Amino acid sequence: MSDKVMFTAVAAQGGNIGPFPTDSILKFDTIITNVGEGYDNTSGVFKAPIAGVYYFTFSYQAPKNYTSGLLLMKNDSVVVKAADHNGRGEYLTDNGGNSAILELALGDKVFMQLPANHCVWTADRTTSFSGFRISQ
Amino acid sequence: MSDKVMFTAVAAQGGNIGPFPTDSILKFDTIITNVGEGYDNTSGVFKAPIAGVYYFTFSYQAPKNYTSGLLLMKNDSVVVKAADHNGRGEYLTDNGGNSAILELALGDKVFMQLPANHCVWTADRTTSFSGFRISQ
Amino acid sequence: MSDKVMFTAVAAQGGNIGPFPTDSILKFDTIITNVGEGYDNTSGVFKAPIAGVYYFTFSYQAPKNYTSGLLLMKNDSVVVKAADHNGRGEYLTDNGGNSAILELALGDKVFMQLPANHCVWTADRTTSFSGFRISQ
Repeated sequence: MSDKVMFTAVAAQGGNIGPFPTDSILKFDTIITNVGEGYDNTSGVFKAPIAGVYYFTFSYQAPKNYTSGLLLMKNDSVVVKAADHNGRGEYLTDNGGNSAILELALGDKVFMQLPANHCVWTADRTTSFSGFRISQ
Repeated sequence: MSDKVMFTAVAAQGGNIGPFPTDSILKFDTIITNVGEGYDNTSGVFKAPIAGVYYFTFSYQAPKNYTSGLLLMKNDSVVVKAADHNGRGEYLTDNGGNSAILELALGDKVFMQLPANHCVWTADRTTSFSGFRISQ
Repeated sequence: MSDKVMFTAVAAQGGNIGPFPTDSILKFDTIITNVGEGYDNTSGVFKAPIAGVYYFTFSYQAPKNYTSGLLLMKNDSVVVKAADHNGRGEYLTDNGGNSAILELALGDKVFMQLPANHCVWTADRTTSFSGFRISQ
Protein backbone atom coordinates (compact mmCIF):
# COMPACT_ATOMS: atom_id res chain seq x y z
CA MET A 1 0.00 0.00 0.00
CA SER A 2 1.20 3.47 -0.85
CA ASP A 3 2.12 5.83 1.93
CA LYS A 4 0.88 8.79 -0.08
CA VAL A 5 -2.23 10.33 1.43
CA MET A 6 -3.47 13.84 0.63
CA PHE A 7 -6.82 15.42 -0.05
CA THR A 8 -8.62 18.70 -0.58
CA ALA A 9 -12.40 18.98 -0.77
CA VAL A 10 -14.72 21.97 -0.87
CA ALA A 11 -18.24 22.35 0.43
CA ALA A 12 -20.20 23.22 -2.70
CA GLN A 13 -23.74 22.31 -1.72
CA GLY A 14 -24.65 25.96 -2.31
CA GLY A 15 -25.86 28.61 0.11
CA ASN A 16 -25.82 28.37 3.87
CA ILE A 17 -25.51 25.08 5.76
CA GLY A 18 -27.06 25.43 9.21
CA PRO A 19 -27.84 26.57 11.75
CA PHE A 20 -29.08 23.17 12.95
CA PRO A 21 -30.25 22.32 16.49
CA THR A 22 -27.53 19.69 17.00
CA ASP A 23 -23.88 19.17 16.05
CA SER A 24 -23.37 17.68 12.61
CA ILE A 25 -20.56 16.71 10.27
CA LEU A 26 -20.01 19.22 7.51
CA LYS A 27 -19.70 17.36 4.22
CA PHE A 28 -17.18 18.75 1.79
CA ASP A 29 -18.89 17.19 -1.17
CA THR A 30 -16.65 18.22 -4.04
CA ILE A 31 -13.24 16.58 -4.18
CA ILE A 32 -10.30 18.46 -5.68
CA THR A 33 -7.59 15.95 -4.74
CA ASN A 34 -7.86 12.60 -2.97
CA VAL A 35 -4.63 10.61 -3.30
CA GLY A 36 -4.90 7.46 -1.17
CA GLU A 37 -8.70 7.74 -0.94
CA GLY A 38 -8.66 8.63 2.75
CA TYR A 39 -11.43 11.21 2.45
CA ASP A 40 -15.04 10.09 1.88
CA ASN A 41 -17.20 12.88 0.51
CA THR A 42 -20.46 11.06 1.21
CA SER A 43 -19.80 10.94 4.97
CA GLY A 44 -17.48 13.94 5.20
CA VAL A 45 -15.04 11.83 7.20
CA PHE A 46 -11.32 11.30 6.59
CA LYS A 47 -10.23 7.90 7.85
CA ALA A 48 -6.47 7.36 8.08
CA PRO A 49 -5.64 4.61 5.56
CA ILE A 50 -2.21 4.28 7.16
CA ALA A 51 -0.77 5.39 10.49
CA GLY A 52 1.40 8.48 10.55
CA VAL A 53 1.65 12.17 11.28
CA TYR A 54 -0.80 14.26 9.28
CA TYR A 55 -1.38 17.95 8.67
CA PHE A 56 -4.95 19.28 8.40
CA THR A 57 -6.23 22.73 7.56
CA PHE A 58 -9.63 24.27 6.92
CA SER A 59 -11.05 27.61 5.83
CA TYR A 60 -14.62 28.84 5.72
CA GLN A 61 -16.72 31.79 4.79
CA ALA A 62 -19.91 32.47 6.69
CA PRO A 63 -22.74 34.99 6.69
CA LYS A 64 -22.36 37.56 9.45
CA ASN A 65 -26.00 37.37 10.55
CA TYR A 66 -25.51 33.90 12.07
CA THR A 67 -23.08 32.52 14.61
CA SER A 68 -20.52 30.74 12.46
CA GLY A 69 -17.67 28.32 12.87
CA LEU A 70 -16.24 24.85 12.53
CA LEU A 71 -14.40 22.40 14.76
CA LEU A 72 -11.62 20.12 13.55
CA MET A 73 -12.37 16.79 15.24
CA LYS A 74 -10.19 13.74 15.82
CA ASN A 75 -12.56 10.89 16.62
CA ASP A 76 -14.64 12.33 19.51
CA SER A 77 -12.26 15.17 20.49
CA VAL A 78 -12.05 18.79 19.41
CA VAL A 79 -8.58 19.59 18.07
CA VAL A 80 -8.91 23.22 16.98
CA LYS A 81 -11.74 25.60 16.24
CA ALA A 82 -12.55 28.79 14.38
CA ALA A 83 -15.77 30.69 14.99
CA ASP A 84 -17.45 34.06 15.09
CA HIS A 85 -20.46 35.55 16.79
CA ASN A 86 -23.34 36.84 14.73
CA GLY A 87 -23.39 40.53 14.01
CA ARG A 88 -25.53 43.08 12.33
CA GLY A 89 -25.62 43.13 8.57
CA GLU A 90 -26.85 40.16 6.60
CA TYR A 91 -24.76 41.28 3.70
CA LEU A 92 -21.43 40.91 5.45
CA THR A 93 -19.32 37.79 5.88
CA ASP A 94 -16.84 36.23 8.24
CA ASN A 95 -13.76 34.27 7.26
CA GLY A 96 -12.12 31.77 9.55
CA GLY A 97 -9.91 28.73 9.59
CA ASN A 98 -7.38 26.79 11.55
CA SER A 99 -4.78 24.02 11.19
CA ALA A 100 -3.25 21.18 13.19
CA ILE A 101 -0.77 18.35 13.00
CA LEU A 102 -2.02 15.05 14.39
CA GLU A 103 -0.51 11.66 15.04
CA LEU A 104 -3.04 9.17 13.70
CA ALA A 105 -3.38 5.44 14.06
CA LEU A 106 -4.81 3.38 11.23
CA GLY A 107 -8.52 4.10 11.03
CA ASP A 108 -8.56 7.26 13.15
CA LYS A 109 -11.28 9.60 11.94
CA VAL A 110 -10.81 13.31 11.28
CA PHE A 111 -13.68 15.53 10.20
CA MET A 112 -15.14 19.02 10.43
CA GLN A 113 -17.99 19.50 12.84
CA LEU A 114 -20.58 22.21 12.39
CA PRO A 115 -21.61 22.98 15.97
CA ALA A 116 -25.28 23.28 16.86
CA ASN A 117 -26.65 26.72 15.99
CA HIS A 118 -23.68 27.58 13.77
CA CYS A 119 -23.70 28.26 10.05
CA VAL A 120 -21.22 28.34 7.16
CA TRP A 121 -21.45 29.27 3.50
CA THR A 122 -20.97 26.50 0.95
CA ALA A 123 -20.57 28.20 -2.39
CA ASP A 124 -17.86 29.97 -4.38
CA ARG A 125 -15.21 27.45 -3.21
CA THR A 126 -14.69 29.43 -0.03
CA THR A 127 -15.14 26.59 2.48
CA SER A 128 -12.48 23.90 2.18
CA PHE A 129 -10.85 21.05 4.09
CA SER A 130 -7.41 19.63 3.31
CA GLY A 131 -5.03 17.13 4.81
CA PHE A 132 -1.92 15.20 3.99
CA ARG A 133 0.42 12.73 5.58
CA ILE A 134 3.71 14.34 6.51
CA SER A 135 5.59 11.24 7.61
CA GLN A 136 5.34 7.87 9.29
CA MET B 1 17.18 18.14 -10.90
CA SER B 2 16.22 18.41 -7.27
CA ASP B 3 12.76 17.41 -6.20
CA LYS B 4 12.73 20.11 -3.52
CA VAL B 5 10.28 22.88 -4.32
CA MET B 6 8.97 25.34 -1.73
CA PHE B 7 8.31 29.06 -1.66
CA THR B 8 6.82 31.88 0.38
CA ALA B 9 6.37 35.39 -0.96
CA VAL B 10 4.61 38.44 0.44
CA ALA B 11 2.90 41.29 -1.36
CA ALA B 12 4.83 44.30 -0.16
CA GLN B 13 4.08 46.87 -2.83
CA GLY B 14 2.56 49.02 -0.10
CA GLY B 15 -1.03 50.14 0.41
CA ASN B 16 -4.07 48.84 -1.40
CA ILE B 17 -3.87 46.92 -4.68
CA GLY B 18 -7.15 47.30 -6.56
CA PRO B 19 -9.99 47.52 -7.10
CA PHE B 20 -9.36 47.17 -10.85
CA PRO B 21 -12.04 46.80 -13.56
CA THR B 22 -10.75 43.38 -14.66
CA ASP B 23 -9.24 40.27 -13.08
CA SER B 24 -5.50 40.45 -12.55
CA ILE B 25 -2.68 38.40 -11.08
CA LEU B 26 -1.62 39.60 -7.65
CA LYS B 27 2.16 39.79 -7.56
CA PHE B 28 3.78 38.76 -4.32
CA ASP B 29 6.88 40.77 -5.02
CA THR B 30 9.02 40.01 -1.98
CA ILE B 31 10.43 36.49 -1.74
CA ILE B 32 11.04 34.94 1.68
CA THR B 33 11.88 31.43 0.47
CA ASN B 34 12.12 30.02 -3.07
CA VAL B 35 13.83 26.64 -3.10
CA GLY B 36 13.66 25.20 -6.62
CA GLU B 37 12.86 28.61 -8.14
CA GLY B 38 9.30 27.66 -9.02
CA TYR B 39 7.88 31.05 -8.06
CA ASP B 40 8.50 34.10 -10.26
CA ASN B 41 7.95 37.35 -8.40
CA THR B 42 7.93 39.45 -11.57
CA SER B 43 4.91 37.61 -13.01
CA GLY B 44 3.41 36.41 -9.71
CA VAL B 45 3.13 32.93 -11.20
CA PHE B 46 4.36 29.64 -9.72
CA LYS B 47 5.22 27.18 -12.49
CA ALA B 48 5.76 23.59 -11.38
CA PRO B 49 9.42 22.79 -12.10
CA ILE B 50 8.65 19.11 -11.55
CA ALA B 51 5.43 17.09 -11.50
CA GLY B 52 4.03 16.10 -8.14
CA VAL B 53 1.48 16.81 -5.45
CA TYR B 54 1.78 20.30 -4.00
CA TYR B 55 0.28 22.19 -1.07
CA PHE B 56 -0.61 25.87 -1.46
CA THR B 57 -1.87 28.38 1.09
CA PHE B 58 -2.55 32.10 1.10
CA SER B 59 -3.56 34.79 3.58
CA TYR B 60 -4.53 38.39 3.04
CA GLN B 61 -5.55 41.49 4.88
CA ALA B 62 -7.89 43.94 3.20
CA PRO B 63 -9.56 47.26 3.96
CA LYS B 64 -13.18 46.84 4.96
CA ASN B 65 -14.45 49.65 2.75
CA TYR B 66 -13.86 47.63 -0.42
CA THR B 67 -14.96 44.22 -1.57
CA SER B 68 -11.92 42.07 -0.93
CA GLY B 69 -10.63 38.64 -1.78
CA LEU B 70 -8.36 36.38 -3.76
CA LEU B 71 -8.72 33.25 -5.87
CA LEU B 72 -6.17 30.44 -5.91
CA MET B 73 -5.93 29.52 -9.60
CA LYS B 74 -4.56 26.41 -11.33
CA ASN B 75 -4.01 27.39 -14.96
CA ASP B 76 -7.46 28.75 -15.95
CA SER B 77 -9.49 27.21 -13.12
CA VAL B 78 -10.47 28.50 -9.70
CA VAL B 79 -9.34 26.08 -6.98
CA VAL B 80 -10.38 27.87 -3.77
CA LYS B 81 -11.36 31.40 -2.80
CA ALA B 82 -11.56 33.73 0.17
CA ALA B 83 -13.46 37.00 0.00
CA ASP B 84 -15.51 39.52 1.89
CA HIS B 85 -18.09 42.13 1.03
CA ASN B 86 -17.37 45.77 1.66
CA GLY B 87 -18.72 47.22 4.86
CA ARG B 88 -18.89 50.46 6.69
CA GLY B 89 -15.77 51.78 8.33
CA GLU B 90 -12.68 52.58 6.33
CA TYR B 91 -10.60 51.99 9.37
CA LEU B 92 -11.49 48.33 9.77
CA THR B 93 -9.95 45.34 8.01
CA ASP B 94 -10.82 41.87 6.83
CA ASN B 95 -8.59 38.84 7.05
CA GLY B 96 -9.01 35.85 4.79
CA GLY B 97 -7.19 32.90 3.33
CA ASN B 98 -7.51 29.38 2.05
CA SER B 99 -5.43 26.31 1.15
CA ALA B 100 -5.43 23.42 -1.29
CA ILE B 101 -3.50 20.37 -2.36
CA LEU B 102 -3.08 19.99 -6.11
CA GLU B 103 -1.65 17.37 -8.41
CA LEU B 104 0.49 19.28 -10.89
CA ALA B 105 2.11 18.30 -14.15
CA LEU B 106 5.40 19.84 -15.16
CA GLY B 107 4.75 23.45 -16.12
CA ASP B 108 1.30 23.79 -14.57
CA LYS B 109 0.75 27.34 -13.38
CA VAL B 110 -0.58 28.30 -9.96
CA PHE B 111 -1.19 31.91 -8.98
CA MET B 112 -3.38 34.24 -6.96
CA GLN B 113 -6.00 36.15 -8.88
CA LEU B 114 -7.36 39.45 -7.65
CA PRO B 115 -10.92 39.46 -9.03
CA ALA B 116 -12.26 42.54 -10.79
CA ASN B 117 -13.50 45.14 -8.30
CA HIS B 118 -11.72 43.48 -5.37
CA CYS B 119 -8.95 44.93 -3.23
CA VAL B 120 -6.27 43.65 -0.84
CA TRP B 121 -3.71 45.33 1.38
CA THR B 122 -0.05 44.85 0.50
CA ALA B 123 1.91 46.11 3.47
CA ASP B 124 2.98 44.90 6.90
CA ARG B 125 3.65 41.36 5.55
CA THR B 126 -0.02 40.49 5.96
CA THR B 127 -0.68 39.19 2.45
CA SER B 128 1.29 36.07 1.62
CA PHE B 129 1.38 33.10 -0.77
CA SER B 130 3.19 29.82 -0.03
CA GLY B 131 3.53 26.44 -1.63
CA PHE B 132 5.60 23.31 -1.46
CA ARG B 133 5.85 19.92 -3.10
CA ILE B 134 4.60 17.19 -0.77
CA SER B 135 5.54 14.18 -2.87
CA GLN B 136 5.89 12.82 -6.37
CA MET C 1 18.89 11.97 15.59
CA SER C 2 15.55 11.76 13.85
CA ASP C 3 14.76 14.19 11.09
CA LYS C 4 11.07 14.21 12.05
CA VAL C 5 9.99 17.52 13.53
CA MET C 6 6.36 18.64 13.78
CA PHE C 7 4.27 20.37 16.39
CA THR C 8 0.90 21.93 17.08
CA ALA C 9 0.12 23.87 20.24
CA VAL C 10 -2.88 25.94 21.27
CA ALA C 11 -3.06 28.96 23.56
CA ALA C 12 -5.43 27.79 26.26
CA GLN C 13 -4.63 30.13 29.14
CA GLY C 14 -8.23 31.29 28.96
CA GLY C 15 -9.68 34.68 28.09
CA ASN C 16 -7.82 37.55 26.50
CA ILE C 17 -4.03 37.84 26.48
CA GLY C 18 -3.03 41.50 26.18
CA PRO C 19 -3.04 44.26 25.37
CA PHE C 20 0.37 44.80 26.98
CA PRO C 21 2.53 47.96 26.71
CA THR C 22 5.42 46.09 25.05
CA ASP C 23 5.89 43.25 22.57
CA SER C 24 5.80 39.80 24.11
CA ILE C 25 5.98 36.17 23.07
CA LEU C 26 2.59 34.48 22.99
CA LYS C 27 2.87 31.16 24.75
CA PHE C 28 0.86 28.32 23.24
CA ASP C 29 0.76 26.41 26.46
CA THR C 30 -1.15 23.28 25.48
CA ILE C 31 0.67 20.86 23.21
CA ILE C 32 -1.32 18.72 20.77
CA THR C 33 1.66 17.25 18.90
CA ASN C 34 5.40 17.72 19.43
CA VAL C 35 7.40 15.15 17.50
CA GLY C 36 11.09 15.98 17.83
CA GLU C 37 10.49 18.24 20.84
CA GLY C 38 11.31 21.41 18.92
CA TYR C 39 8.55 23.43 20.56
CA ASP C 40 8.88 24.55 24.18
CA ASN C 41 5.53 25.49 25.71
CA THR C 42 7.08 27.18 28.72
CA SER C 43 8.91 29.77 26.59
CA GLY C 44 6.60 29.66 23.57
CA VAL C 45 9.64 29.29 21.32
CA PHE C 46 10.28 26.68 18.64
CA LYS C 47 14.00 26.03 18.27
CA ALA C 48 15.03 24.05 15.18
CA PRO C 49 16.49 20.77 16.46
CA ILE C 50 17.89 20.11 12.99
CA ALA C 51 18.52 22.34 9.97
CA GLY C 52 16.04 22.20 7.11
CA VAL C 53 13.11 23.83 5.40
CA TYR C 54 10.08 24.20 7.65
CA TYR C 55 6.45 25.18 7.23
CA PHE C 56 4.73 27.27 9.91
CA THR C 57 1.12 28.36 10.23
CA PHE C 58 -0.94 30.14 12.88
CA SER C 59 -4.56 31.08 13.47
CA TYR C 60 -6.12 33.25 16.13
CA GLN C 61 -9.41 34.55 17.33
CA ALA C 62 -9.57 37.96 19.00
CA PRO C 63 -12.15 40.24 20.55
CA LYS C 64 -13.19 43.03 18.22
CA ASN C 65 -12.98 45.75 20.86
CA TYR C 66 -9.17 45.61 20.89
CA THR C 67 -6.54 45.89 18.22
CA SER C 68 -5.59 42.28 17.57
CA GLY C 69 -2.92 40.34 15.78
CA LEU C 70 0.21 38.24 15.84
CA LEU C 71 3.58 38.25 14.11
CA LEU C 72 5.41 35.11 13.02
CA MET C 73 9.03 35.79 13.99
CA LYS C 74 12.28 34.14 12.89
CA ASN C 75 14.88 35.13 15.47
CA ASP C 76 14.60 38.95 15.48
CA SER C 77 12.78 39.36 12.16
CA VAL C 78 9.10 39.54 11.28
CA VAL C 79 8.23 36.91 8.67
CA VAL C 80 4.47 37.36 8.25
CA LYS C 81 1.68 39.02 10.19
CA ALA C 82 -2.07 39.00 10.65
CA ALA C 83 -3.88 41.76 12.48
CA ASP C 84 -7.04 43.79 12.75
CA HIS C 85 -8.01 47.18 14.08
CA ASN C 86 -10.37 47.47 16.98
CA GLY C 87 -14.00 48.11 16.16
CA ARG C 88 -17.25 48.70 17.88
CA GLY C 89 -18.95 45.78 19.53
CA GLU C 90 -17.33 43.94 22.38
CA TYR C 91 -19.34 40.92 21.50
CA LEU C 92 -17.83 40.44 18.05
CA THR C 93 -14.60 38.68 17.13
CA ASP C 94 -11.89 38.73 14.51
CA ASN C 95 -10.21 35.72 12.99
CA GLY C 96 -6.78 35.88 11.43
CA GLY C 97 -3.79 33.80 10.53
CA ASN C 98 -0.90 33.40 8.16
CA SER C 99 1.73 30.87 7.03
CA ALA C 100 5.30 30.75 5.80
CA ILE C 101 8.05 28.41 4.71
CA LEU C 102 11.44 29.12 6.22
CA GLU C 103 14.94 27.76 5.77
CA LEU C 104 16.27 27.25 9.28
CA ALA C 105 19.72 26.54 10.61
CA LEU C 106 20.15 24.41 13.70
CA GLY C 107 18.97 26.45 16.68
CA ASP C 108 17.08 29.13 14.78
CA LYS C 109 14.14 30.35 16.84
CA VAL C 110 10.61 30.74 15.53
CA PHE C 111 7.81 32.11 17.69
CA MET C 112 4.62 34.15 17.69
CA GLN C 113 4.92 37.71 18.90
CA LEU C 114 1.99 39.57 20.39
CA PRO C 115 2.74 43.18 19.45
CA ALA C 116 2.43 45.92 22.05
CA ASN C 117 -1.18 47.04 22.48
CA HIS C 118 -2.57 43.99 20.67
CA CYS C 119 -4.80 41.28 22.08
CA VAL C 120 -5.83 37.72 21.21
CA TRP C 121 -8.28 35.25 22.67
CA THR C 122 -6.88 32.11 24.28
CA ALA C 123 -9.79 29.80 24.84
CA ASP C 124 -11.91 27.36 22.86
CA ARG C 125 -8.84 26.09 20.96
CA THR C 126 -9.16 28.94 18.49
CA THR C 127 -5.59 30.28 18.69
CA SER C 128 -3.01 27.79 17.44
CA PHE C 129 0.57 27.54 16.16
CA SER C 130 1.88 24.65 14.07
CA GLY C 131 5.05 23.80 12.22
CA PHE C 132 6.80 20.90 10.59
CA ARG C 133 9.98 20.15 8.72
CA ILE C 134 9.33 19.65 5.02
CA SER C 135 12.81 18.56 3.96
CA GLN C 136 16.49 18.96 4.55
